[in-house]
Amino acid sequence: MSIPKAVVLSSGGLDSTTVMAIAKHAGFAIYSLSFDYGQRHAFEVESARKVAKAFGAQEHLVINIDLKKIGGSALTDDIDVPKTGTEASRAEGIPATYVPARNTIFLAYALAWAEVLQSSDIFLGVNAIDYSGYPDCRPEYIEAFERMANLATKAAVQGITQTKIRTPLIHMTKAQIIQKGIELGVDYSLTHSCYDPTPQGLACGRCDSCILRLKGFKATGIADPAKYIC
Amino acid sequence: MSIPKAVVLSSGGLDSTTVMAIAKHAGFAIYSLSFDYGQRHAFEVESARKVAKAFGAQEHLVINIDLKKIGGSALTDDIDVPKTGTEASRAEGIPATYVPARNTIFLAYALAWAEVLQSSDIFLGVNAIDYSGYPDCRPEYIEAFERMANLATKAAVQGITQTKIRTPLIHMTKAQIIQKGIELGVDYSLTHSCYDPTPQGLACGRCDSCILRLKGFKATGIADPAKYIC
Repeated sequence: MSIPKAVVLSSGGLDSTTVMAIAKHAGFAIYSLSFDYGQRHAFEVESARKVAKAFGAQEHLVINIDLKKIGGSALTDDIDVPKTGTEASRAEGIPATYVPARNTIFLAYALAWAEVLQSSDIFLGVNAIDYSGYPDCRPEYIEAFERMANLATKAAVQGITQTKIRTPLIHMTKAQIIQKGIELGVDYSLTHSCYDPTPQGLACGRCDSCILRLKGFKATGIADPAKYIC
Repeated sequence: MSIPKAVVLSSGGLDSTTVMAIAKHAGFAIYSLSFDYGQRHAFEVESARKVAKAFGAQEHLVINIDLKKIGGSALTDDIDVPKTGTEASRAEGIPATYVPARNTIFLAYALAWAEVLQSSDIFLGVNAIDYSGYPDCRPEYIEAFERMANLATKAAVQGITQTKIRTPLIHMTKAQIIQKGIELGVDYSLTHSCYDPTPQGLACGRCDSCILRLKGFKATGIADPAKYIC
């Protein structure tokens, strides 16, 4: 029997890297999928490349997407990334770093690639506990996407694949995610989480993503190997 | 009250142009969305531009997408487009022109743009009768996408929009679609349907898309204003 293939959505961050470790440990051949979407940090794509290499991915595909043309987010537009504690970063519970329909676009591409690879398994590092309040990280969204996916493709209709959107972190705290990754031998120094790094790639330590990461490492009692401004 | 906005997915073809006429007639302000996905015919994007202009679209957004990197279709890969009658163009009911997860990718972008525009209405020219057998043109797929969409976005969660995927052609024959378009004053000479046109833009008259179009015009008794090789 051939090794099953998994498409793993990878941002080069802490969560998706842990997910890749979990997929690898479960016996999947890794097909890493990243997006270059005019995000402020090219570091994200570079980290994803290093992570894919570290896990011996069969392929690492980087798709350019035009989210800047659509706009509507601090991550793609020329507006400031809110810093937790310094301003209202979570108006009505969803922060300015929300990117319209991002996970739907990411998963749509993953579904296309999975179909070509004849893979049933798409891994995504969403998390419904220590997360930034994005609607497309919730279990009910993931279930609805999966249901749609199984009506969308030729491979599904012909019974070649039965798409499963695998979200192993969805009910874990950030500290549990880090502990799991450490158990599986993840080198978190390769990963990159900051929404607003310096041109040299130092993390700001103050955006939502940095705050969540630092809190998670603190709770585990393990030092974060990422480099911060201060 | 301001005029409601609609995102209309436009390929510059017969179906999506008729859909745009229907959306316009229903009183929507038109936001036309097209994709440049390495399809063989740049004519498609050029037709979509002309059509958007003809309908006085508020905006015509063309998104570049990397479907060639993913592959898996006669429309994006360097393989021949099957010609009806000349070979088995519909192996297991779904032809080689099927593009993996195409409507899911298209609708994902439409959902993102609709959210930024605060629009609830996405129009798509899919058709479940005179169509090419694509799974992502069926009503059950559209319903599943709509359900997912309403769990995916900040605008939906906050009650700003209630996404509706509008597919006014879904139960119409090609002839009925053309008749509807003629009633609404559509100039079909602007539209382009062929999967495999000549470099000068002449339609082949033999691919699935041409065959369906020609049959539709024949049934209405109206001459097709498109230019064919023969």
